[in-house]
Amino acid sequence: MRVVVPFDADDPKTRLAPVLGAGERAAFATAMLRDVLETVRAAGHEPEVLSTASAGVDAPVTVDEQPLSPAVNAVLAAHDGPIAVVMADLPLGTPDALARLTESDADVALVPGLGGGTNAFLTRDPTFRVDYHGGSYRKHREQVAASGASLATVDSFWLSLDVDEPGDLAEVLLHGDGHAETWLREAGFELAADGRGLAAHRN
Amino acid sequence: MRVVVPFDADDPKTRLAPVLGAGERAAFATAMLRDVLETVRAAGHEPEVLSTASAGVDAPVTVDEQPLSPAVNAVLAAHDGPIAVVMADLPLGTPDALARLTESDADVALVPGLGGGTNAFLTRDPTFRVDYHGGSYRKHREQVAASGASLATVDSFWLSLDVDEPGDLAEVLLHGDGHAETWLREAGFELAADGRGLAAHRN
Repeated sequence: MRVVVPFDADDPKTRLAPVLGAGERAAFATAMLRDVLETVRAAGHEPEVLSTASAGVDAPVTVDEQPLSPAVNAVLAAHDGPIAVVMADLPLGTPDALARLTESDADVALVPGLGGGTNAFLTRDPTFRVDYHGGSYRKHREQVAASGASLATVDSFWLSLDVDEPGDLAEVLLHGDGHAETWLREAGFELAADGRGLAAHRN
Repeated sequence: MRVVVPFDADDPKTRLAPVLGAGERAAFATAMLRDVLETVRAAGHEPEVLSTASAGVDAPVTVDEQPLSPAVNAVLAAHDGPIAVVMADLPLGTPDALARLTESDADVALVPGLGGGTNAFLTRDPTFRVDYHGGSYRKHREQVAASGASLATVDSFWLSLDVDEPGDLAEVLLHGDGHAETWLREAGFELAADGRGLAAHRN
């Protein structure tokens, strides 16, 4: 199956600015992208990157300077057959979790993200289009319901954890074992007790 | 399989105090507990509640005034055979997700929670004991590794979402369809756009 991984190569992960400088955010975003590409390959697919600029990773890259939603919709409009789109900031994704998405027999399968986003989807419906702005999971559900296509939701903690905010870094340290987790440790992050449980702190 | 649901009936959900009064927290906690009990039944098991005081729900209740960890460990010590323990603050849990826990063939299967907790587990190892204080998921993993028992991790967003903090309420409004979601709507909570995506706001 065709699996597209959109990537913001220009100013990625701005909400991590309180804890990472601009160059660090770019490096960490690339580490997460590499984890996602390896997971897609381990699940038996060849990933393609859809990037706003050159991405510097070992995968085919298409550059589209448009914002995320029109860039993804341009891919969907030009494609026939099933296609999956997986965000680049899911470093905890596993081949098993991804297989539960790609093996869904629904017309559209969605993976919700923390806070109401859509972290990944599969569509066999050629009319499905994305709108990632503001609570996209609910909007995508409503779109599928209105179209009459069948809908599935994939229940995966690993794929629901998009790493956007400083509070998300603890999950990468706790559960990760790839490039993103290694990058954070080498940058001096470690786990420490905090209000809810564990949080990432930098030395 | 025996499925035990621990419940704090005395002063539940203290971290929701910024948005809910004490009586509201008790009512909301009970609504979440009812959702969990229904999910356990829908998955084919008869739930038992392990509560610090009378719980006022339609299920067998054992009262143990000890803190959570010694209360659960007393149950584990007195039990032979497989047993699952599922937290009471998982209103998004589904029968499918719970089945992935109870059908695991590992000696110990853990469901991680956001922030490093352990939201549910299954044990067939009679020596397994809990320690819920501060990052229990990591401690439980280490305990199982040291014992030589086999370990599985169950990857479920729905079971990983323990509702502890005001920010968690949006997930209940977004994805829930049970008692907890109804309680929040009747209490005036609704979804609105926020930094990450959607957040719960009260009218």
